[in-house]
Amino acid sequence: MQTGNTVYFRTKPRIAATATVAGPKECAGVVGKYVDLPLDDDTFGEDTFERAERKMFLYAVQKSIEKANLAAPPDVFLAGDLLNQIISASFTARATGLPFLGIYNACSTMSEALLLGGMLLDGGYAQTAVAATGSHFSSAERQYRYPLELGNTRPPQSQWTVTGAGSAVLARGEEGPALTCGTVGRVIDYGVSDVNNMGAAMAPAAADTIRKHLIDTGRDPSYYDLILTGDLGVLGSRLVKDLLWEKGIDISANHADCGEIIYADNEDEFQGGSGAGCSAVVFNSYIYDLLRGGSKVNKVLLVATGALLSTVSSGQGESIPCIAHAVAIEQGRTFDRETN
Amino acid sequence: MQTGNTVYFRTKPRIAATATVAGPKECAGVVGKYVDLPLDDDTFGEDTFERAERKMFLYAVQKSIEKANLAAPPDVFLAGDLLNQIISASFTARATGLPFLGIYNACSTMSEALLLGGMLLDGGYAQTAVAATGSHFSSAERQYRYPLELGNTRPPQSQWTVTGAGSAVLARGEEGPALTCGTVGRVIDYGVSDVNNMGAAMAPAAADTIRKHLIDTGRDPSYYDLILTGDLGVLGSRLVKDLLWEKGIDISANHADCGEIIYADNEDEFQGGSGAGCSAVVFNSYIYDLLRGGSKVNKVLLVATGALLSTVSSGQGESIPCIAHAVAIEQGRTFDRETN
Repeated sequence: MQTGNTVYFRTKPRIAATATVAGPKECAGVVGKYVDLPLDDDTFGEDTFERAERKMFLYAVQKSIEKANLAAPPDVFLAGDLLNQIISASFTARATGLPFLGIYNACSTMSEALLLGGMLLDGGYAQTAVAATGSHFSSAERQYRYPLELGNTRPPQSQWTVTGAGSAVLARGEEGPALTCGTVGRVIDYGVSDVNNMGAAMAPAAADTIRKHLIDTGRDPSYYDLILTGDLGVLGSRLVKDLLWEKGIDISANHADCGEIIYADNEDEFQGGSGAGCSAVVFNSYIYDLLRGGSKVNKVLLVATGALLSTVSSGQGESIPCIAHAVAIEQGRTFDRETN
Repeated sequence: MQTGNTVYFRTKPRIAATATVAGPKECAGVVGKYVDLPLDDDTFGEDTFERAERKMFLYAVQKSIEKANLAAPPDVFLAGDLLNQIISASFTARATGLPFLGIYNACSTMSEALLLGGMLLDGGYAQTAVAATGSHFSSAERQYRYPLELGNTRPPQSQWTVTGAGSAVLARGEEGPALTCGTVGRVIDYGVSDVNNMGAAMAPAAADTIRKHLIDTGRDPSYYDLILTGDLGVLGSRLVKDLLWEKGIDISANHADCGEIIYADNEDEFQGGSGAGCSAVVFNSYIYDLLRGGSKVNKVLLVATGALLSTVSSGQGESIPCIAHAVAIEQGRTFDRETN
């Protein structure tokens, strides 16, 4: 059930349901018509951005549980977010009363949660699990960069933190796309210290995990209909393809990046979207629908990428350690034999 | 392998080795003679407290791996800490190059890491794992409360964040105390909002998890030689016993708290120790040695307790959500039949 850094899920836990909520800017793009609750107002009627973020988080979790139509409350809640002390996840855990395992790998939290959820279900430690994360542009900006009121000019290499949350309910059975295997990432740091250049910082971690996954499973990139990175953006996406190309791996035919696709072309977001909510919203709405549809996209490798950026360590002269976790999600009954 | 919120480890993963490092104040107490590296200087020769914390973290992890004498590097590193973005754990992951799953449940991170590690080994997703956490008084004070330079008077209900780190290596085989089962906690919040009164905030979460664990397993508190809470301190320890007493459960005969026992009697630390490093240091040094000795203490329920405190949410008028995870560690070959 384990080769190198890759684990296999014998019982094929299913993503029984997902739910998402996102801000108006996000819903102007491709995900707009797939999101359960497109917001008109990114404060979600709350008086602070942190409360708005938390309300989105809770909405996504509760809606996904409702859609999954479970016989009993989920056995475990695996979640984290970008705010210090993962407060959006913690307050959602408080509101739902679910057994809670807090996790944090920045914007790779969505795939970390699915990966851990897959192991907990497959190992028999839970019958059902909820995996969730989210982010909010305005709460992230003021925590990681500058107060919005300062009106700083954004540099061209910057990305826009997604305002949104996504949640997936994992369950046994035959309903929904299955988790078949996953690869645990390791921290890679090429020395990028520009807090506005997350894509470049994270690309080496994504390349490392994708390469490790392909080696461990003996698969060619073409095995997947889609190798979906989390939030590398335009520049980071080019870098991950170049880095893999140098190692003799060509993912250009089937790679897409949630950060690159989330915003509409006419939105001037430089390199695209970022944040834990980026892969959470794109995967749990648009991509999940494609998988359920089952016509074109049947095998997805979700590789959410995280920049483990701390303002304190950056201020102390440190570069940004990055990580990416991969999880394979497959629709239909024809799984690769190695994972059976 | 699961009853209620409690999971059972069929294969009994072992704690093959542990390692700890702690500051001079901590080593003046009972743990002093069990800690691998007692520090003379809490800066550990570094120029910032954050770097000192990180250096302790890396020391504990590397030393535990060395002591475990593994044939290959550990399969996975499960860790988190109190600093924003769990930077001490992230930088340790970078330095070691191990596959990394970042976790965060504040001061309950030690038992969360052991619980997840137990599931990963027992489920066959890893052969070996490292579970670690730590904290530093001075980095925690300036992040969560006030800069030390301000010289604030500490109120009598306060605790002292432990300067130290602890790491445990989990492996298969027959060597070392075994993880037999564990209970995933849920967030409990009785409305305490005083950031200097962590013990009172966390006691209800500890009581909830201990009660759930005893119900799920059908055990009496006397099953355990020691029910060891993480960092409730003197006041919190009294509260957890009272709260359980009200539910008809008497743990007074075999309860101890890491925060209550870590400092020497003549150290004026009010309610005692706290911080993720508190249970990490006490469990992985003194208690682990007692278990290995095997004469008096053979069955320990470690219930590390976490206050998911955020300065932002506290500033926005929120109370402190708290959590506790329980993990049963048993020495010898005579495990309870229910866990076999």
